[in-house]
Amino acid sequence: MLNDTLGINAAGHLTFDGQDTAELAKEYGTPLYLMSEDRLRYNCRLYRQSMTEGFGPDSMPLFAGKSFCLTAMYPILAEEGFGADVVSGGELYTALCAGFPADRLYFHGNGKTDREIRFGVGAGIGYFVVDSPEELEAVSDLARSMGKKQKILLRLTPGIDPHTFAQVNTGRLDCQFGVPLETGEAMAFAEQALRCPGVELVGFHCHIGSQIFSWTPFRDAADRMLRFMRDLKAKTGFVTRILNLGGGFGVRYTEYDPEVDIPASIAALAEHIKARCGEWDLAMPQLRMEPGRSIVADAGLSLYTVQALKRIEGGKNYAVVDGGMSDNPRYALYQASYTVYSANRANDPADMVCTVAGRCCESGALLQEGVSLPAPKRGDLIAMCCTGAYQYSMASNYNRVGRPPVLLLSGAGNRLIAKREEYPDLVKLDL
Amino acid sequence: MLNDTLGINAAGHLTFDGQDTAELAKEYGTPLYLMSEDRLRYNCRLYRQSMTEGFGPDSMPLFAGKSFCLTAMYPILAEEGFGADVVSGGELYTALCAGFPADRLYFHGNGKTDREIRFGVGAGIGYFVVDSPEELEAVSDLARSMGKKQKILLRLTPGIDPHTFAQVNTGRLDCQFGVPLETGEAMAFAEQALRCPGVELVGFHCHIGSQIFSWTPFRDAADRMLRFMRDLKAKTGFVTRILNLGGGFGVRYTEYDPEVDIPASIAALAEHIKARCGEWDLAMPQLRMEPGRSIVADAGLSLYTVQALKRIEGGKNYAVVDGGMSDNPRYALYQASYTVYSANRANDPADMVCTVAGRCCESGALLQEGVSLPAPKRGDLIAMCCTGAYQYSMASNYNRVGRPPVLLLSGAGNRLIAKREEYPDLVKLDL
Repeated sequence: MLNDTLGINAAGHLTFDGQDTAELAKEYGTPLYLMSEDRLRYNCRLYRQSMTEGFGPDSMPLFAGKSFCLTAMYPILAEEGFGADVVSGGELYTALCAGFPADRLYFHGNGKTDREIRFGVGAGIGYFVVDSPEELEAVSDLARSMGKKQKILLRLTPGIDPHTFAQVNTGRLDCQFGVPLETGEAMAFAEQALRCPGVELVGFHCHIGSQIFSWTPFRDAADRMLRFMRDLKAKTGFVTRILNLGGGFGVRYTEYDPEVDIPASIAALAEHIKARCGEWDLAMPQLRMEPGRSIVADAGLSLYTVQALKRIEGGKNYAVVDGGMSDNPRYALYQASYTVYSANRANDPADMVCTVAGRCCESGALLQEGVSLPAPKRGDLIAMCCTGAYQYSMASNYNRVGRPPVLLLSGAGNRLIAKREEYPDLVKLDL
Repeated sequence: MLNDTLGINAAGHLTFDGQDTAELAKEYGTPLYLMSEDRLRYNCRLYRQSMTEGFGPDSMPLFAGKSFCLTAMYPILAEEGFGADVVSGGELYTALCAGFPADRLYFHGNGKTDREIRFGVGAGIGYFVVDSPEELEAVSDLARSMGKKQKILLRLTPGIDPHTFAQVNTGRLDCQFGVPLETGEAMAFAEQALRCPGVELVGFHCHIGSQIFSWTPFRDAADRMLRFMRDLKAKTGFVTRILNLGGGFGVRYTEYDPEVDIPASIAALAEHIKARCGEWDLAMPQLRMEPGRSIVADAGLSLYTVQALKRIEGGKNYAVVDGGMSDNPRYALYQASYTVYSANRANDPADMVCTVAGRCCESGALLQEGVSLPAPKRGDLIAMCCTGAYQYSMASNYNRVGRPPVLLLSGAGNRLIAKREEYPDLVKLDL
């Protein structure tokens, strides 16, 4: 099986986190998202402990809320010693409603509105990660008008493409986030920040991509950021206190994906950064990393019920299920790979190659292609694994299909952390 | 300008349906969806009148709700003599809550659950469009258990690819919807339906695709369906009373798209079908068509506020706006083309080629590329045209961004038909 959260019990049912998925489907209905609290906390601790060991106690992992933003996540994150990044007023609102410490929040995003800036400044959040010169002016002006001085990081673009071995890839430079290092604009941006009266510049942020399976692109990005910190210090005397290297470690969606050794990767990165800081005479900054996917992805699993099987002569076999691109658009968006198992007949030979088609009415609305299953029939249960990230958070009401509930599996007792979206919920915004 | 709903007023502001878009943005905030009631009704009447003239008074256009499903749509559709198709319990619930006549509803979809089938049968909806043999059994059994006989159409796959000139394209055969004609399975499906005690077979449905700019693929699909009706009649004596040719006429997203002459296309199709029925000795069936996009797309327009402009040296110019793939995922999904104008400086020379980037935190979260605008700055307004279809209905809360409101522009007075999704709305399902 894909990982050790999965198993098969005596009834031939797939188990997740030790629980019978077919029984859970019966109790809660489908589609159903499951989230393992144990796995989630285990993933949190991998980061927290590795960062503390490598970077010291003033380092901190920040959960990337966009990967799975639900109220119930924040108390868990707080307990695990995490901070969190938020990318909108809505994520900020969620974290605050959950009682998450505002000073551990980092407000990201390239399109922050004035209203959101006021909300964040007023709530006393830790840091704005400022994305552009216009936004810098807006944050400074609004903070000042509120009688505050807002701590900020600046988002810089280091020009690293994590998916090539080339040291320099200007492709990554050309994106809608941050300000590029290599054109000299980052230096001007930092100097502008040092002049802005409503903000206090504390450090810098970069994010180089996602599904990265090696630590070396982070090393390369860190090198560029550290070189920039050195140059800025030489030019202005500014000492960077926080360096945020963003997120991006990959997760195993299928058996073909490698496994990242998080502790070893963070240890290697820490050693490299400490050596560089020594070499370049830089005070070791407080490190931040922003795992999202690698915290929640493999803690999640989705269950669907087959509604029909279509065997097209000379074509594919379509297992049509009761969910689809409305609850998981990642295949429609990126042809994302997932591992799929039968949940109620997990021991039967998986001798039919199927396309798992969603219920949404468009031909691209598939969930996965080329998966092997025991020939499915109406009423059979299908499990998609490693679906905890960018699934609930990307879910829509396309076709006016309600979002599935999220059930947190826990040794202390399972509990729903998001309720099923029912018909009356779907018309709540209609006037 | 793209079409005659658009103009520029003396203030240099873009007008839509005669109203100043910059003033509307000021009054209602952005992002904002506008919907023109006049245009919507105009589009409805094109179909209604053309179908009545071509196919007679017992024909009926059905609105494809998935393109824009909001409560306020249904009274308008009812007034315009439309039926509607629904693809989920949620769409059915919406139409029923709006007081839409149940007997004018057609329940589509390949993944109908037992609960949805009971809901539809119980509500007395006109027709189920049955998608598979398994579903046929389920509808028959459930209807019977409720003491009802449910009228149905069968969804068949005619094997037409509307985007080639080839008469036969087996590619279209290989999809997750319907039952293929050319393999003989459709005949078995119809015979099964005639034997099922809980259903009354009334006719057949097909849907060949979308963004089709010629009437001839519909003619080819109709020919195959009529030939099937003839063969079925010869074999079983069954007389088809309803033929539903689905949707698919294209709309002009950009000036490069052709314009479909709906009345001429429907007239040509009607003439062809009448002639074929005469030739093959078939009673003329009641015709149904299912326009969605061509009813609502050009009746819609979206307004955004620019938050930042990024001019990457040697790269692109990014106009970052306060909306994105959460309110319109069509570019992220399909690289869909749209026409974009400045809303507040519509007379200024559009001399900067920009990528319109959304606020969502991923690099693919663009709204459009290669659009010409007057160099945008924070606070400028941008209009995306022809966004009435598959936009509100596909919107998500990705990044916990709330869905924009929908403002119906009307000579009788503008009114919101969907309210803005505010922070408290975003946590309503959280437990």
